[in-house]
Amino acid sequence: MKAQGYVVHSAGALLEPFEFDRRELRPRDVGLEILYSGICHSDIHQAREEWDPAIFPMVPGHEIVGKVTEIGSQVSKFKVGELIGVGVFIDSCRNCSSCLSGLEQYCLEEMTGTYNAKERDGKTIAFGGYSNRFVIDEDYAVHVPTNLELSGVAPLMCAGITLYSPLKHWQAGPGKKVAIMGLGGLGHMGVKFAHALGAETTVFSHSAEKEQDAKAMGADHFVITSDVDVLKKYQRNFDLILNTVSAQIDLEPYLQSLKLDGTLVVIGLPGKPYAVKAGTLLGQRRSLAGSMIGGIRELQEMLYFCGEHNILCDVEVIAADYINQAYDRTVASDVKYRFVIDAKTF
Amino acid sequence: MKAQGYVVHSAGALLEPFEFDRRELRPRDVGLEILYSGICHSDIHQAREEWDPAIFPMVPGHEIVGKVTEIGSQVSKFKVGELIGVGVFIDSCRNCSSCLSGLEQYCLEEMTGTYNAKERDGKTIAFGGYSNRFVIDEDYAVHVPTNLELSGVAPLMCAGITLYSPLKHWQAGPGKKVAIMGLGGLGHMGVKFAHALGAETTVFSHSAEKEQDAKAMGADHFVITSDVDVLKKYQRNFDLILNTVSAQIDLEPYLQSLKLDGTLVVIGLPGKPYAVKAGTLLGQRRSLAGSMIGGIRELQEMLYFCGEHNILCDVEVIAADYINQAYDRTVASDVKYRFVIDAKTF
Repeated sequence: MKAQGYVVHSAGALLEPFEFDRRELRPRDVGLEILYSGICHSDIHQAREEWDPAIFPMVPGHEIVGKVTEIGSQVSKFKVGELIGVGVFIDSCRNCSSCLSGLEQYCLEEMTGTYNAKERDGKTIAFGGYSNRFVIDEDYAVHVPTNLELSGVAPLMCAGITLYSPLKHWQAGPGKKVAIMGLGGLGHMGVKFAHALGAETTVFSHSAEKEQDAKAMGADHFVITSDVDVLKKYQRNFDLILNTVSAQIDLEPYLQSLKLDGTLVVIGLPGKPYAVKAGTLLGQRRSLAGSMIGGIRELQEMLYFCGEHNILCDVEVIAADYINQAYDRTVASDVKYRFVIDAKTF
Repeated sequence: MKAQGYVVHSAGALLEPFEFDRRELRPRDVGLEILYSGICHSDIHQAREEWDPAIFPMVPGHEIVGKVTEIGSQVSKFKVGELIGVGVFIDSCRNCSSCLSGLEQYCLEEMTGTYNAKERDGKTIAFGGYSNRFVIDEDYAVHVPTNLELSGVAPLMCAGITLYSPLKHWQAGPGKKVAIMGLGGLGHMGVKFAHALGAETTVFSHSAEKEQDAKAMGADHFVITSDVDVLKKYQRNFDLILNTVSAQIDLEPYLQSLKLDGTLVVIGLPGKPYAVKAGTLLGQRRSLAGSMIGGIRELQEMLYFCGEHNILCDVEVIAADYINQAYDRTVASDVKYRFVIDAKTF
C-alpha cells in the first residue's frame, strides 16, 4: 500500500516528504491509519547517525498511535475501527528465552526496530512512524484505551514504557522513595508513573523553573542540583533512582543517595562510560542497573494503567513540515515535554 | 585481663610482640581463648595505612576462632568450653533499620570494626585477633560446629562470609550459572560455596596452574583469562558473577557475559573507579552491585552450612613470628589460600 511520510536520505540531512510502499497485509497483519507519531530524541541520534551506522533512506518514528483500517485473514486481536499502538520494535525471534518471557526487547537474536532496521528477512528496510499508514504483525501491537487524548498517548509507546518498566521491575510503590533525575520527555513520565504507583517521588533537576510542572505531575519533592552539594542531604535516602539524563554526569553523589539495597537505573546512553566506585556500591549493597523500554505484555499493561489513571505524555502537537525545527528544539531541550506529529499533515 | 598478641605501632612498621589489657567481662560479655586467627589482605592495607587514616597501636585480625573460657552474668548464648567465632565487627548501633534486620554490617551509624576502630564509647581502641585472648559481647559472636578443622574455620569469619552472603542474596543455586573472578583467599571460598549451593560454577583466573585446585573445590569450568578475548565465548551466559579481584580490571567483558537480569557483584576495593558503559547494562537489564561481609545471623547460618557440607578455607598455619613474612607473601599472592596464625604462638 502507498504511504506518505517524511524521510532522511543521508546522515544529518533535513527530513523531507516521501512517498513509499508498505507491504500488503499478510494473514496476521493489521493495517492502520496513523493518527499521531511522537518524536523521540533517539530519532535524532539515528537520523544524524550519531550512534551506530544507520540505514538510509530512513523514515524515523517509533511512537505510533492510530486506528485499525484493515486486518489480515488470521488476525484475532484487533478489529477494524479500534485504536492501536506501535512502539520501538515490530518483531523479534519469538523463540528465545526472552521472547518466551514476554521480554522481546531483550530478544537474544535482537528485536527488529520499528525503523533504522532490516526486517527479519534480512533485506526489507523497516520504515517508521513519520507517516500516515502502517502495517504491523498483530503480536507486536497493543490496544489503546478509548478515554485518552491520543496525541498524549503516542510518546507513551517509547518514553512512557521506558520509565514504567523499571519502576515496575524495581517495585516502586507505597512506602518506597523514588527519585527521577531530569525532567524532560522521559523524566516527566517517570514522575507521573512513580506518583501513580504510590511512591514518594523526588525530582532532581538543574532547572529551577520546572518545579511547578514537577509538582503538578505528582512530585512530592523537587531538588535543584545545579549545586551538586545539595545531594549530601540525601545520603542513603532512596530505594530507586532513575537516571533519564543522557548527558555525561557524575553518578557518585546519586549512588550515595541510595539506601541499603537501593538501585540506580540508567536509561539514557551517554557517550562515555560512567565512573563507579566499588566502595559506594559495597557500603550499602547498592546496585547500578540498566533498563531498556519494555515488552509487549508490559506495554499493554502500561496503556491500561494510563487509561485507569488518565496518564498522558505532555506534548506539543506539530505539523510534519515542522519536524526539522522540532529536532533542533529537542536537542536544545526546548519542548514541554515531547513533540508529536499530527499524521494528517504527512 | 592480660593478653599477648602482635602489634603494629605505625603505618608500615613490622609487627612485633605486644602485651596489653582487654576489658574485664561485662554482664553480656564472653571471654575466649583464641585458637586460630586468620590473616586477611585487609589487615595489610590497614597496618600499612593504605586506606583511610589508621589507628595505632593496631592489633590486626578479624578472623577469630576460639574456645569460651568465661561468661558474664547475663550471657545466655554461650557456655564455657564451647567453640566460638568472631568476625569483622564487634558491635553496631543495634537500633537502626539495618541492625534490626540483622544486617549489622550496613549499620547506619557504622559497625564497630574488630580492630583499627574505636569502640562505641568513642575512645577505647579495639584490638583485634592477632592475640591469645578476646572479649566480645555475646550478640556479636557465633557458634562454630564441632566437626570442622578449626584452622580452616578462622578465615570463614571474613573471607567465607564475604562470598557466602552475595551468593545467597543473589540466589545462587540449582539452575543458576555462577562465575567467580579470581581464585585467591576470597575466590576459592566462592567456588566452594557456589558449588555446595548447587550452582554451575565457573572460575575466571589468570593462573592456568590453578585449574586443578579449582576443579577439586567444585568448579565445573575453569577459564584462563590472560587473553581477555576468551570471554567473548561467554556472552550473555551467567546469572551471577562475583569479582574477588581487588586489582584494577576492565569489567566490560565480564558485564557482557551476564545474561538477562544478571548481576556482577564487586567485593574487592580497587583504588580507582570502574568504567561502566550504560549500553552494556541496558542491553540485558544487567546490574553491577557491591556486597560487604554479612550480618551475624547470616554468619551463623554460614557456619552451620559449612558444618553440614564440611566446607573449610584452605590454609597455611603459621606461628606468630612469621606474620611479617606472611604479609609479604600475601601481597605476592603466594599462599594457598589464606594464612592462619596458631594462637598458641603469641
